[in-house]
Amino acid sequence: MLNCKKAEPILVVGSVALDTVQTPFGQAKEVLGGSATYFALAASLFTPVRLLSVVGQDFPRKYLRRLQLHSIDLAGLQVLPGKTFRWTGRYRENMNEAETLSVCQNVLGQFPEIPAHYRESRFVFLANTDPLTQLKTLEAIEAPQMVACDTMNLWIRTQKTVLKKLLRKVNILIVNDSEARMLTGKVNLPTAVWALLAHGPKTVIVKKGEHGVFLCTNGELFAVPAYPLHQVVDPTGAGDSFAGGFLGYLASQPRFTPREIRRATVYGTVVASFTVEDFSTRRLEKITLKDVETRFQEMKRILKF
Amino acid sequence: MLNCKKAEPILVVGSVALDTVQTPFGQAKEVLGGSATYFALAASLFTPVRLLSVVGQDFPRKYLRRLQLHSIDLAGLQVLPGKTFRWTGRYRENMNEAETLSVCQNVLGQFPEIPAHYRESRFVFLANTDPLTQLKTLEAIEAPQMVACDTMNLWIRTQKTVLKKLLRKVNILIVNDSEARMLTGKVNLPTAVWALLAHGPKTVIVKKGEHGVFLCTNGELFAVPAYPLHQVVDPTGAGDSFAGGFLGYLASQPRFTPREIRRATVYGTVVASFTVEDFSTRRLEKITLKDVETRFQEMKRILKF
Repeated sequence: MLNCKKAEPILVVGSVALDTVQTPFGQAKEVLGGSATYFALAASLFTPVRLLSVVGQDFPRKYLRRLQLHSIDLAGLQVLPGKTFRWTGRYRENMNEAETLSVCQNVLGQFPEIPAHYRESRFVFLANTDPLTQLKTLEAIEAPQMVACDTMNLWIRTQKTVLKKLLRKVNILIVNDSEARMLTGKVNLPTAVWALLAHGPKTVIVKKGEHGVFLCTNGELFAVPAYPLHQVVDPTGAGDSFAGGFLGYLASQPRFTPREIRRATVYGTVVASFTVEDFSTRRLEKITLKDVETRFQEMKRILKF
Repeated sequence: MLNCKKAEPILVVGSVALDTVQTPFGQAKEVLGGSATYFALAASLFTPVRLLSVVGQDFPRKYLRRLQLHSIDLAGLQVLPGKTFRWTGRYRENMNEAETLSVCQNVLGQFPEIPAHYRESRFVFLANTDPLTQLKTLEAIEAPQMVACDTMNLWIRTQKTVLKKLLRKVNILIVNDSEARMLTGKVNLPTAVWALLAHGPKTVIVKKGEHGVFLCTNGELFAVPAYPLHQVVDPTGAGDSFAGGFLGYLASQPRFTPREIRRATVYGTVVASFTVEDFSTRRLEKITLKDVETRFQEMKRILKF
């Protein structure tokens, strides 16, 4: 059974959003979303989480209470005058790709104040948000020990220079397959991964949605298929939930051996499999570490040969 | 190390073709191809193979000699008046999907005579060809013990009734993801696999190209990512090479336990990884069981956690 006694708190910076999502299975309006939200809820299964983000005055109190229920530290979640970041998107038959219908940045462009105790965090996740915010956050941390980051096509297109500067400072890069290709100009994934390693991170993780995860750490490859689900209701947040499960597990373990990184990848995969079973964070909020452990053991059976 | 002492001969019926293929890496004209060809060369790494097919009088003798070099029994490869089956296809950036430019059936519609010793085969692979030929071949076998089959979108569209009759008689169905969806009308792959199991086969294997293989046998799921390659030159024949490695390994082992079926899946994956590294059967013809074993051990490392 999983032992999380040595859990280190993780600081996550990223978006907290109100999402409106349509999938072949229905829709959800102005529901809790955002990269930092999914990450925080996923990681909080394993370890304490410190959330750094901004929301507007319209952000529903019930969502704050739901995050607090998971012992997520909200000292760094600032409520600013204005409206919360909103994302509206749609998934069609191919649930692997979101189609963005609208994005309203609103208060998200403003940099949150970093509470003093956040600066002592040794684990940091720079969830998908603009690279300048990611870099500024990282520079405010006193002695980061394990830094992971994500990004998206928009920043690769518009802020590649800052992004590359950031990559030199992170230990783990977690991106999806199209981002890996876009960042490197390489179509072949293993080749793209080698090219990304040359930018700085010791570990590069490529998320392939329903096709699982591909990883290179210390020169060793590792691959995990996704947990097989009979129904994917809403893929939103799968990647951030993966990152939360991954880094949450790592932060709860005394060592970062290649074996632990591999196990962390499977924990990330399993946590993400719950997220996509319902809209927003509904399913993710309901699970316990025991549910995660059950699917982890199932993955062991599925992958054994 | 792999022990193939108890190897049973496998009878394969399917196409022997002259392929013309274009990929982003170049092209090949009138080269050795066909579902039975790839299967036979792949399976011959592990076990003797009996090839049942027809070619025209234009079929190059050098190709016959190359098949003989691999100890493939050609007693059932009939040379008929007329031309050999030809396929012309193209792959663009997405190497996962072939675009057929032309197909000339030529002599392939004629049913080959089955040599007497072929009828004693206990292992049978019904490679992709029309379901009536598959069924007729199977009915000529005296006591089949392990029957696997493949099919394609054309037969699913035009011969679904015969195909369903066939499925009741096979132990293992090996199809790709789009065929699994088309055969069942289910978009979700695990759901499609359950639906296929209801048609008869005890084992259903879904090939997902660069995303690996998904399998259900005796109610247990198993998934394997593809072997990570830095360059895929020509994906033609990958699926048949997978089937050849899979069934060849099984036929070389004394038992068909779930463990052996899982190991066979990894052997199939590894054999297919060689095929796609060059056009036609060039790479596949050059490898030895030792090369296969090296990549099998590498897959063990890649998948271990």
